[in-house]
Amino acid sequence: MSSTIWSVDEHLEDILAAVKPLEPIELQLLDAQGCVLVEDITVQIALPPFDNSSMDGYAVRTSDVAGASEEFPAVLTVVGDVAAGSGGTLRVGPGEAARIMTGAPLPPGAEAVVPVEWTDGGSGGGPAVTMRAASGAPEGASGEVRVHRPVEARAHVRARGSDVQAGDLALESGTVLGPPQIGLLAAVGRATVKVRPRPRVVVLSTGSELVQPGEPLSAGQIFDSNSFALTAAARHAGAIAYRVGAVTDDADTLRATIEDQLIRADMIVTTGGVSVGAYDVVKEALSSVGEGDDTGGGVDFRKLAMQPGKPQGFGSIGPEHTPLLALPGNPVSSYVSFELFVRPAIRALMGLKDVHRPKVRATLSADKPLSSPSGKRQFLRGAYDEAAGTVTPVGGTGSHLVAALARADALIVVPEDTTELEPGAEAEVVLLG
Amino acid sequence: MSSTIWSVDEHLEDILAAVKPLEPIELQLLDAQGCVLVEDITVQIALPPFDNSSMDGYAVRTSDVAGASEEFPAVLTVVGDVAAGSGGTLRVGPGEAARIMTGAPLPPGAEAVVPVEWTDGGSGGGPAVTMRAASGAPEGASGEVRVHRPVEARAHVRARGSDVQAGDLALESGTVLGPPQIGLLAAVGRATVKVRPRPRVVVLSTGSELVQPGEPLSAGQIFDSNSFALTAAARHAGAIAYRVGAVTDDADTLRATIEDQLIRADMIVTTGGVSVGAYDVVKEALSSVGEGDDTGGGVDFRKLAMQPGKPQGFGSIGPEHTPLLALPGNPVSSYVSFELFVRPAIRALMGLKDVHRPKVRATLSADKPLSSPSGKRQFLRGAYDEAAGTVTPVGGTGSHLVAALARADALIVVPEDTTELEPGAEAEVVLLG
Repeated sequence: MSSTIWSVDEHLEDILAAVKPLEPIELQLLDAQGCVLVEDITVQIALPPFDNSSMDGYAVRTSDVAGASEEFPAVLTVVGDVAAGSGGTLRVGPGEAARIMTGAPLPPGAEAVVPVEWTDGGSGGGPAVTMRAASGAPEGASGEVRVHRPVEARAHVRARGSDVQAGDLALESGTVLGPPQIGLLAAVGRATVKVRPRPRVVVLSTGSELVQPGEPLSAGQIFDSNSFALTAAARHAGAIAYRVGAVTDDADTLRATIEDQLIRADMIVTTGGVSVGAYDVVKEALSSVGEGDDTGGGVDFRKLAMQPGKPQGFGSIGPEHTPLLALPGNPVSSYVSFELFVRPAIRALMGLKDVHRPKVRATLSADKPLSSPSGKRQFLRGAYDEAAGTVTPVGGTGSHLVAALARADALIVVPEDTTELEPGAEAEVVLLG
Repeated sequence: MSSTIWSVDEHLEDILAAVKPLEPIELQLLDAQGCVLVEDITVQIALPPFDNSSMDGYAVRTSDVAGASEEFPAVLTVVGDVAAGSGGTLRVGPGEAARIMTGAPLPPGAEAVVPVEWTDGGSGGGPAVTMRAASGAPEGASGEVRVHRPVEARAHVRARGSDVQAGDLALESGTVLGPPQIGLLAAVGRATVKVRPRPRVVVLSTGSELVQPGEPLSAGQIFDSNSFALTAAARHAGAIAYRVGAVTDDADTLRATIEDQLIRADMIVTTGGVSVGAYDVVKEALSSVGEGDDTGGGVDFRKLAMQPGKPQGFGSIGPEHTPLLALPGNPVSSYVSFELFVRPAIRALMGLKDVHRPKVRATLSADKPLSSPSGKRQFLRGAYDEAAGTVTPVGGTGSHLVAALARADALIVVPEDTTELEPGAEAEVVLLG
């Protein structure tokens, strides 16, 4: 037990220095959503892989339709259909046209595509608005077509490689895979991809006073809320989070529970039991871990110069040296601690470069000055108004005020050396989004 | 088949008029994350439910510690421990103190809590920095304690109901449940909650040219990418999305596949087969649906005054009138169509009030003017720079350019009546986030 007081930044720095990105694994594309790519993706085949039509129409030789007009159409013999996915055995000779669909390969001999709307569609009548379905009108793939307008060479043709060429770098290592990146990976033929997986985070709350919501409360008991809020927050941060029910204030039970959970944990988050009380079980249970010869790391308990959230524990546990963050038990303290320390740790495990919430500066909108203890960084719950550029405190400073927390979308940061923040002053604001 | 041209806004309006929020269901708290609450949550019991200590320390009568100092401490008899979760049989009489932990109920007779740091912690020595664990030092719950400072009545006591009172409105119907709201629901004892569920969205792509990524490509074939990109996008929008593999251009197969999927679909999204070609299977298969007497709705195929994404289908299908959006098959067209029409529809199914992506105005940063067809709303891929307030076009206008799409984080909107947008001009930008 040290009586040193650590700053918020020192504690965060120690956590981020210790938490290493997870080892990459090969995942199916849709399982890799939101993950960080750890390989450069080079294009194996050009996109598109072949010249193809960008319209439904007729593949023609340009000289055959030179000077064509609605009054004096070029009349061509339709030699067949080229549907998308067609292997392509058709050839377009002089005076011929192939009916062609969007995405279908331009057949040999053809130089351009005339959209169906520039033809009679084989009807012998006026300009077509559409083709008739091949299944109901197979005769559309034969007979004659009247073309009403000339086209230039390559008109309505997407050239092979016009999107990407073989050998191009499609995606760089370090890219976060959102929907368009997943689409691109599929388009270049990748079924799986090497990424850092989502971390599996085990969340457990401690306290003999905690009762599962929905169960009856006895005297001196409250409902467990931290394990719910933090599991949801871990998922929102990108983790696969497992909520373990509240554990009673007994060191052996807690140790056994944590040891059981290690098998599925890339990180463990506890709440409660980290302060100076006689039943602070997390401190008691984990202070002895790491002292034997078979367990890893050890957990360090500190006092931080912050409010709320002064008592914090961080270290690693078990043979794999699984990171463990021990947060205080007050609901607001634990939530603020999550935002400041656990969320960045989760994002560091994912290999993300940007582990922090966005920060902005906003004008404090309040009836009276905010007071803050000297030497402590205070985090107040606030409601941010982007349009007005203001932030308004929500609720009080109490670390048990969960109702106010649920109305906040930002944290107002009052620095260590500021003891009073006047209405109208500029404040740093962390957006919880 | 109508030759009317519809505007983007008309089409979106028709979709949002037809898509109704899903019926609410009762879900476990952690399954309700991101969902919209459809009941007012009234507090059943006050929070905290009882006066409790905000510190680890000693519960005392204020008159017993009046005038206490380190030099002249008040010496009190420790009558026992009050741990968190304690049922509370202890009573603090004159000259007595109970050792009390954070969150534990203030025992009868006590009026305030003295933090352990303001006492000798029962050691008989100087000021304590911590309590010793009760398990290792049970004697701490008895003997004497020296108190070094006086306290006012109610000091370090959180009053019953100081967070919320019984009868208070904790959360209003319509609230989106993020982590703090889930924490609050747990804190007030709710195990389950009535919300609109996440919509189940079935995504399928159509096209005989489509090959599953990872499989070999034959002549005229490309990899299916739309079903991957749109499934990922639907998940990102909040849906539970199921990717059905690419379906070949055969109306019976497509109809059978869609009918099979209806059982698990709150919405169906298809790509491809909606244009004017002879093998546009979605149009062919779904135009006949709704004509019989046992199926619902029907799907309307339209041309929109937009680029990319001109051909679009929308309607409903099956006995439950499940909404179906039929998007064009070009990867960029389908992705832009998703953003404009499917994402708002998913969010409308969820009952969210704000169904749209954020829009900003930004200065066009480009080497040359952007040209846009008259009468069409054009959506160009762009990279948005928030700090500079600029947007830069990425890639070209081709609807097959998936590589550029993967580098974009915004859509640049060029209105119907604008045919040229000069560098430095102000443009509307949709942030894809």
